[in-house]
Amino acid sequence: MTALAPGALPGPVLVIGCGLIGTSIGLALRAHEVDVLLADAEPANVEAAVSRGAGRTFSDDTEPYLVVAAVPPAAAEDVVVRALTRWSAAYVTDVTSVKAGLQRAIDAHPEAERFAGGHPMAGSERSGPMAGSAQLFEGRPWAVTPGSRTLPAALDAVVDMALHVGAVPIILEAAAHDRAVALVSHVPQVMSTLTAARLNDAQGNHLALAGPGLRDTTRIAGSDSALWIDILGTNAADVRAVLELVRADLDRVIDALGEDDGVLGDVLESGRRGTELIPGKHGSAPARVDIVHVQVADRPGELSRLMTDTGQSGVNIEDLRLDHDLGRPVGLAEIAVALGVGDSLVEALTARGWTAYR
Amino acid sequence: MTALAPGALPGPVLVIGCGLIGTSIGLALRAHEVDVLLADAEPANVEAAVSRGAGRTFSDDTEPYLVVAAVPPAAAEDVVVRALTRWSAAYVTDVTSVKAGLQRAIDAHPEAERFAGGHPMAGSERSGPMAGSAQLFEGRPWAVTPGSRTLPAALDAVVDMALHVGAVPIILEAAAHDRAVALVSHVPQVMSTLTAARLNDAQGNHLALAGPGLRDTTRIAGSDSALWIDILGTNAADVRAVLELVRADLDRVIDALGEDDGVLGDVLESGRRGTELIPGKHGSAPARVDIVHVQVADRPGELSRLMTDTGQSGVNIEDLRLDHDLGRPVGLAEIAVALGVGDSLVEALTARGWTAYR
Repeated sequence: MTALAPGALPGPVLVIGCGLIGTSIGLALRAHEVDVLLADAEPANVEAAVSRGAGRTFSDDTEPYLVVAAVPPAAAEDVVVRALTRWSAAYVTDVTSVKAGLQRAIDAHPEAERFAGGHPMAGSERSGPMAGSAQLFEGRPWAVTPGSRTLPAALDAVVDMALHVGAVPIILEAAAHDRAVALVSHVPQVMSTLTAARLNDAQGNHLALAGPGLRDTTRIAGSDSALWIDILGTNAADVRAVLELVRADLDRVIDALGEDDGVLGDVLESGRRGTELIPGKHGSAPARVDIVHVQVADRPGELSRLMTDTGQSGVNIEDLRLDHDLGRPVGLAEIAVALGVGDSLVEALTARGWTAYR
Repeated sequence: MTALAPGALPGPVLVIGCGLIGTSIGLALRAHEVDVLLADAEPANVEAAVSRGAGRTFSDDTEPYLVVAAVPPAAAEDVVVRALTRWSAAYVTDVTSVKAGLQRAIDAHPEAERFAGGHPMAGSERSGPMAGSAQLFEGRPWAVTPGSRTLPAALDAVVDMALHVGAVPIILEAAAHDRAVALVSHVPQVMSTLTAARLNDAQGNHLALAGPGLRDTTRIAGSDSALWIDILGTNAADVRAVLELVRADLDRVIDALGEDDGVLGDVLESGRRGTELIPGKHGSAPARVDIVHVQVADRPGELSRLMTDTGQSGVNIEDLRLDHDLGRPVGLAEIAVALGVGDSLVEALTARGWTAYR
């Protein structure tokens, strides 16, 4: 659909909204010497972003090549429509996390062909221009969602911008995007929340039996509730559709427990197959790596010493996890290395005094 | 209930079953010079465990102090009953992952007072005597589940054994144990499975939008299905009770989506509170640490170099995660450090040439 190598990105790029995302876009584009203009309803935000080096203050007489509406969902439609109206040649995009509703609104605009939606899959626990970083999008997916009338040149402009900031553009229609994020982000968030909510029922010392599996499955449930009320509400129909399928499987499991191992096995196998579809190292890790466990004392420099010793063994680390210490002054590192290499890493670490095992 | 420092553990300890768990118990006890006897229905397993240094072959004329039935759930009752009958003074324990059913069976035995159940919360993706390790239980919870007639001395024997192998004994009744593991292990497993199962519905490039949250919530869904059919079936009633509460919350979420943000917020908040109840670093991490992101090239020694540089900055690493690379030759390390220390780590790493940011 488009060549995934950055073309020249002519400036200026006008970033409207100098929060975490807008400032980060400015910083990343400036690193490639793209001319960046900054605007924000709050002049102090522009000042802060300019002081960080994210671009220069927008002035009325400049015609932007690309306008990025880096504003919250509630403001996006208004900012995009005003940009399309005000500049007759500028391409326009946004950064909101649910796309179909905005696309429908923009489709009603006569200049909709210059708009292509965008959604960078990156964030931080911090916000505001001072939290911006030129590296925020490095290696992260950036969904680009052209509408039915979007010009190829408008799509290319947004894709080029995503590539310039180090992101991996993923092109799909707005409705498909919303179904996709329901599946890979919004429903996992709900499931993590539902799992964690039950922990409020725990009695006495029961949670002392918690292991890494519980911490993994409930980690994202610790996120900000207000943010997720907003996201889930905006993508309600797609999230509901997936959750209804989840409920059907849950009903099958509840009925099958202790009664029908065949049904239970079907659901468990379906989940196992699902994990194999996730791109990247983690999803496919169980079958393709050796896991080496190493005890690490909880004091400064120990993990550094372990990594140095691991590095000197010549073995590349595929993945690494630290487990908590459960009231002991020792943690457990899980090092994933290529299949067949685990035993030699255990040997090398043991020779250097570590307690290592598979 | 019992002092949590290891008393002297008189031998001999007879371990029946020389698989991963039994062999690991033998190895760990031998490291403290406890006399360990080994038995297994399969003589080759005993030979292998003896060759690993896990103990000596059991001979008929030896009276054990403690018998550990390290056999699969289906064989546990028979092995425990025979041990209680055969040796009139030995304490007896087991290692199965669901306790109430076995306890009820043993309660019918006249010698039940010498039995206390056990469940080490540790495992490996490998099995058999060659996979055994003296460190398998280090820092892991070991549930010890006395029955109503269990002698204090029998409980102490099992607790002492758990302490000798480096585990953290958690004492609770069998029925309470089964409710606890339903909550912290079995239900999270089902929830992870249900989340991952939906990924089979993904179309086209949708899973390219997957992020670390999806990988975290679905990691344990990659586990062996046969093992989980067995575990879930054995603890069916307790797992069902929790899943029914999950279903009630799920129904509330499905109904509230796009309709009632108050209800949605209640469920999300309940989940967020639940994560704060989990002991250990990870559960409480979001509020108490700074997260520093660092780009790491995917070649041998890079992570080692990063850890060395981090160590030399004098900052202790609270937690560390590696993110996958999404088709780029670069990964992302998330380093958690004490609150307030993040900026100085970013500065130190940047000075050494790393691309680091918060």
